[in-house]
Amino acid sequence: MVWQQGHFQYFRSVHFAMPISLYIDPSITIGLQQQIYTEIRTATLTGRFPPRMRLPSSRALASSLGVARMTVTEAYARLISEGYLETRPGSGTFICSVLPEQSLVVSHSGLPVTPRTTKRQASLNTSASASISLSKYGCALQAAPSEDPRRPRSVIRMDQTGPCIASFPVSQWSRVLLRQARNLVRDQFEYARDARGYQPLREAISQYLKRVRSVDCDPNRVVLVSGSQQALDICARILLDANDTVAVEMPCYPAAAQVFASQGARMVHIPVDGAGIDCDALFEQGAELCKATKTPIKLVYVTPSHQFPTGASLSLARRLALLQWAFDNKVLILEDDFDSEYRYAGRPLPSLQGLIPNAPVIYIGTFSRTLFPGLRIGYAVLPEKLVGVFSQAKLLTDRQGTTIDQCALTDFLNEGHLERHILRMRKLYGRRRAILVEALTVQFGDRVRIGGDEAGMHVFAQFSLRIPETTAVHRALVAGVQAGRVHWAKDSARSRSVAFYFGFAALSEPAIREGVRRFAIALGAHPKN
Amino acid sequence: MVWQQGHFQYFRSVHFAMPISLYIDPSITIGLQQQIYTEIRTATLTGRFPPRMRLPSSRALASSLGVARMTVTEAYARLISEGYLETRPGSGTFICSVLPEQSLVVSHSGLPVTPRTTKRQASLNTSASASISLSKYGCALQAAPSEDPRRPRSVIRMDQTGPCIASFPVSQWSRVLLRQARNLVRDQFEYARDARGYQPLREAISQYLKRVRSVDCDPNRVVLVSGSQQALDICARILLDANDTVAVEMPCYPAAAQVFASQGARMVHIPVDGAGIDCDALFEQGAELCKATKTPIKLVYVTPSHQFPTGASLSLARRLALLQWAFDNKVLILEDDFDSEYRYAGRPLPSLQGLIPNAPVIYIGTFSRTLFPGLRIGYAVLPEKLVGVFSQAKLLTDRQGTTIDQCALTDFLNEGHLERHILRMRKLYGRRRAILVEALTVQFGDRVRIGGDEAGMHVFAQFSLRIPETTAVHRALVAGVQAGRVHWAKDSARSRSVAFYFGFAALSEPAIREGVRRFAIALGAHPKN
Repeated sequence: MVWQQGHFQYFRSVHFAMPISLYIDPSITIGLQQQIYTEIRTATLTGRFPPRMRLPSSRALASSLGVARMTVTEAYARLISEGYLETRPGSGTFICSVLPEQSLVVSHSGLPVTPRTTKRQASLNTSASASISLSKYGCALQAAPSEDPRRPRSVIRMDQTGPCIASFPVSQWSRVLLRQARNLVRDQFEYARDARGYQPLREAISQYLKRVRSVDCDPNRVVLVSGSQQALDICARILLDANDTVAVEMPCYPAAAQVFASQGARMVHIPVDGAGIDCDALFEQGAELCKATKTPIKLVYVTPSHQFPTGASLSLARRLALLQWAFDNKVLILEDDFDSEYRYAGRPLPSLQGLIPNAPVIYIGTFSRTLFPGLRIGYAVLPEKLVGVFSQAKLLTDRQGTTIDQCALTDFLNEGHLERHILRMRKLYGRRRAILVEALTVQFGDRVRIGGDEAGMHVFAQFSLRIPETTAVHRALVAGVQAGRVHWAKDSARSRSVAFYFGFAALSEPAIREGVRRFAIALGAHPKN
Repeated sequence: MVWQQGHFQYFRSVHFAMPISLYIDPSITIGLQQQIYTEIRTATLTGRFPPRMRLPSSRALASSLGVARMTVTEAYARLISEGYLETRPGSGTFICSVLPEQSLVVSHSGLPVTPRTTKRQASLNTSASASISLSKYGCALQAAPSEDPRRPRSVIRMDQTGPCIASFPVSQWSRVLLRQARNLVRDQFEYARDARGYQPLREAISQYLKRVRSVDCDPNRVVLVSGSQQALDICARILLDANDTVAVEMPCYPAAAQVFASQGARMVHIPVDGAGIDCDALFEQGAELCKATKTPIKLVYVTPSHQFPTGASLSLARRLALLQWAFDNKVLILEDDFDSEYRYAGRPLPSLQGLIPNAPVIYIGTFSRTLFPGLRIGYAVLPEKLVGVFSQAKLLTDRQGTTIDQCALTDFLNEGHLERHILRMRKLYGRRRAILVEALTVQFGDRVRIGGDEAGMHVFAQFSLRIPETTAVHRALVAGVQAGRVHWAKDSARSRSVAFYFGFAALSEPAIREGVRRFAIALGAHPKN
């Protein structure tokens, strides 16, 4: 028995005179029994302890290691129950003989190699990992550009269109949450009874949407999801096969385009002007597609209340034309009503979905914009025929959302906090939008054109610049501001002027002014203070 | 002006002598202005008010309706801003002339029809809804059998394998939740910084899995998901294309099979015996497939700790063979470790994933079984190479889970509540399992054979019966008990005896005894009390 560096302890087996080493360290927190177990297990797996090798008796090993005999007995018992060791009555404890053929020999890199083919397989790790072959969906995701995380904190993020968390009534939310946490009921711990989500919340949302958004709605057709992203994803999955055609606005909301693309769908890009998606272009392209390839448009994704990112509202004439065309051509419309609650001039336009009864529209919305993104609750209002399959997909995707949050949100809605909050935010955001528009006008004069309605949580601005977009973005980032890049499809006809969107809802007035000033510096527009 | 039934009010336009009717009801809670707005809007959309029709002046309409003039002015203003009405200076307010071509005529069924083709399109509603064409995924979901909800409440549910909610330390959960709700921080309201989920929770889970399940793990390779169902779904999506081959245990966990099937994957069913999945059969089938169709097996889905539903643990020899085969054939293993924490004899077997370093295994787990199903938090431990694409899929699927729950769970884990709870439940469930086994043995004698290890939250039992399985299930339901039906693939070779599984964790001891008694009555086994 030799102590090596105070840690390695050699043990000479009494009967076979075979030295075995166990690395035991009494100073670390892992129990000694666990250490003995792990050491013998690893030695067996790596082939260091060959099959049928006899182990010292528990008494002998315990005394050599200076531990209680019970410690060794229990480690042995566990190894026996797990099939590493076996006892032969009267002759002692052995490494299991069943293992030899199947045992893995682990190479220096910690990889299993079979003895015969050590050389060929020594590099198994890298080749094996590299060889994981993804599905088309997986490949599409891997190919998608990911955000550069190396942005310094001091950069003013005008590319984000989320709400102002600092103005959120945290104490009110805390109160409804506390009430839930204090009065947890059994149902909140079980699986939900209904794949569509918590019934009272579906009722509250239904009432809210009918009242505020004129949505044609009843609780049975409302399905709760984890944010509108999940609604988009489920719609794409239940409706689109690879090579099915979806019409999207161009420019458009990039996360939606990514969902359709990763599903393998073909996208036709329909231009957007001051009155929203260009319906004539849509109808024309739809007819052409039908004639040329016999693959009609199956789905149209639109943001009629406040187009992302141009900020245009879809005109009433186009809404009617779109609905009529959808009926005539059996096309489904996916209406993403993501920030419709915020309109600073005039009333919010009613939803496209509620314009006529039984419209062929899936209406989706979220509380990420009106409340906060960390709350993962959105909803889809579906045509009767789709409720079953959508709920089934929700069930298979992740079963359900968190019940406690759904209960808290129900109280929040029913006590009127949501609508009061929206009213307050409408004032705040309206002021912030005005300041942003003013700052852009002051800094850029007639070299900027502000597009879109006085609505939403971002402003769309077109600049006459002499530098390309990527240069502008890079310079702006160096100057300490990130403007929102507009998502154009590669083949889409884009306007000659460079356009950006600017989120304003979450930024204070000085931050908005400073952001625009930095942007002006970056673009060499002789900034004014 | 005529009041009809006290509600319908006719108004005769002064200039055109055209009678217009507005349905106004002062007794209902919707504001009068809203009622006027809705009535005129609907009348315009349905064509009841033709384009270019002149409306009465706001003063005249107000006086005829007996409402304040302001009410009418505001309704008019809104209709003008939304494009339904237009004013011509000096001559009054008119129904918009831009609409005529695009306006929808709504039939009696509330459906839009164009005047020319009224007859053909009168039934548009049903035909349009019926014509929604789903994707293959959507069709697969629609075809899947849904549970019969007409089960009376008094039925003892032995088909459910969830935890005992009544024994959950609600007050402890409430305490961590209250602490979060009282100290909400801004980050909890924002989008998560990391698509993988809340970093401290990933750390806590990583530590837990290393300690308790011997998982080869670090927080960077842990991705939080909404329950293990979402992990299964994302794995299927990023790894499997239509017609890719997955090997599944047979019988198997039906929700997993459904995920693979709905993804369009081909499944090969590998039989299970007392030592888990039959690896020889797997390797043979894999080799045959490769030879015959050149579509090798891409993924193997296994439940090694406690096979669902047979309850077998995968033997060590098979574990090693499976890993070696996976390495050699570049197959990924999906290890679903769904209820491994509960083992009533001996210690829990370490995970398959942690048996050797860099194993080609995706390890998935959930807190639905150890804590409660309403908490939607599960996890996947991924090979390095898959972390990026898996997180990207999570982001695109539903962005993230609820931060507040993730924070509460972090505290719960770090304060040791989880492990204490598991220890308590191990005693309780062990007792319940023993009672279930005893009851089955008492009632069925040698006509029942209990399979599987003393582990998990269900017992697998094979019966020698003279009646077919469906009859047995039906009779049991009539007798007031639902046994768990084993999911067999249609083409799989099943044993001649009829097998059921029985969940016991959530049932009290009397309920277990009564459930088995009812089952014995149903199957005509001369029940003993």
